[in-house]
Amino acid sequence: MNNISDIKKAVILLSGGLDSTTTLYLAKSQGYDLRAIIFNYNQRHKRELEYAQKIAAHNGIAYHLLNIDLSWTKSSLTDRTMQVPCNRNVSDKEVPLTYVSARNIVFLSYAFSLAESINAKKIFIGAHIQDYSGYPDCRPEFFDSFQKAFHAGMKYKDIEIVTPLIDKSKKEIIETGLNLGVPFQYTWSCYQGGEFPCEQCDSCRFRMKAFEELGMKDPLLADSKLI
Amino acid sequence: MNNISDIKKAVILLSGGLDSTTTLYLAKSQGYDLRAIIFNYNQRHKRELEYAQKIAAHNGIAYHLLNIDLSWTKSSLTDRTMQVPCNRNVSDKEVPLTYVSARNIVFLSYAFSLAESINAKKIFIGAHIQDYSGYPDCRPEFFDSFQKAFHAGMKYKDIEIVTPLIDKSKKEIIETGLNLGVPFQYTWSCYQGGEFPCEQCDSCRFRMKAFEELGMKDPLLADSKLI
Repeated sequence: MNNISDIKKAVILLSGGLDSTTTLYLAKSQGYDLRAIIFNYNQRHKRELEYAQKIAAHNGIAYHLLNIDLSWTKSSLTDRTMQVPCNRNVSDKEVPLTYVSARNIVFLSYAFSLAESINAKKIFIGAHIQDYSGYPDCRPEFFDSFQKAFHAGMKYKDIEIVTPLIDKSKKEIIETGLNLGVPFQYTWSCYQGGEFPCEQCDSCRFRMKAFEELGMKDPLLADSKLI
Repeated sequence: MNNISDIKKAVILLSGGLDSTTTLYLAKSQGYDLRAIIFNYNQRHKRELEYAQKIAAHNGIAYHLLNIDLSWTKSSLTDRTMQVPCNRNVSDKEVPLTYVSARNIVFLSYAFSLAESINAKKIFIGAHIQDYSGYPDCRPEFFDSFQKAFHAGMKYKDIEIVTPLIDKSKKEIIETGLNLGVPFQYTWSCYQGGEFPCEQCDSCRFRMKAFEELGMKDPLLADSKLI
């Protein structure tokens, strides 16, 4: 039988972007006792790792920073010889060049292992389908199917994947975050490897557009010092 | 459309034990062009990694040696303060102390990522249920369910998990291996961290018993030098 503290234990996949950070604040507002996993998969935008760690520390959340070798994957997020795409539309359905083969699957596998080991019953992930409907591992049917598979393969059969942002647009995610006090200046979205957001890659563009729609400047861009 | 060489590409999970090594020889005998993944998850019996690499090199198979951090798991294979069990029966159904939370799930996630990236259509794994029916991630229903989940979450939907040993006993696996010329002296099964097999842990006992049933001495024990 679970005790009360166990019922509220949860694992969160934290990338340092605004989706996972908003998810963290949402889960925290619901009283979850969180443990974060942050993944270094040699992504071009390793800068997000600093932001993820800062957000975790700021919220007093213990985290595991894991090094993941997916060097075989042909993705513009890991292969520096490829271009980061800058012209994707929100409605595009094909798998983008930034797709890292089985990345979310690998991440979730670690998350289930951690959750089972610390007796957490929820795994929060900030996936959503609006901006990147082309990612097969961000779709609700994937999460449903994957959860069933985990239950077949694990000792405990009651760990649940929670995707509170799955149907939200980027604008709605930011609105949710603003209501929860998310410090967006400490979230990182740019896919390029620079010191400052490039403001041109798809990830920058979707983010900038969403802040614009809300009639505000992205706090990350407004903050001249960054971290 | 796949070309002929792609159809025969496959990934194999190679532990250095006799099950995965026999699986490798089986796949090779069927004409598969193999790429191996070997996992260092800080297991007590890291010696198996040397054996896995030796088997891969001996067969001219390229391999990835990946470091996996599952340090949170409470397993006697990774936690040196726990005892390695020595009294399990083949028919025991409960999850053993050697269970590493989601280990096969993490391994398979990497394997699917690699397979998709190199355009391999099969993933061979030497899992079987006879000796360790208590492992939830070795059961056929897990592999079926997991394959479906991968197809939901990946770009390519045609990668198949192959478990040629799933219903075989240890004795039958060894017989299969003997017919294929598996050099069993270069396979490692002992769960303890010693220089030589302890001959007492469950893994040693099941292996020794199987060779005894075949009226032969384990070539590993017969080889005084080891590798």
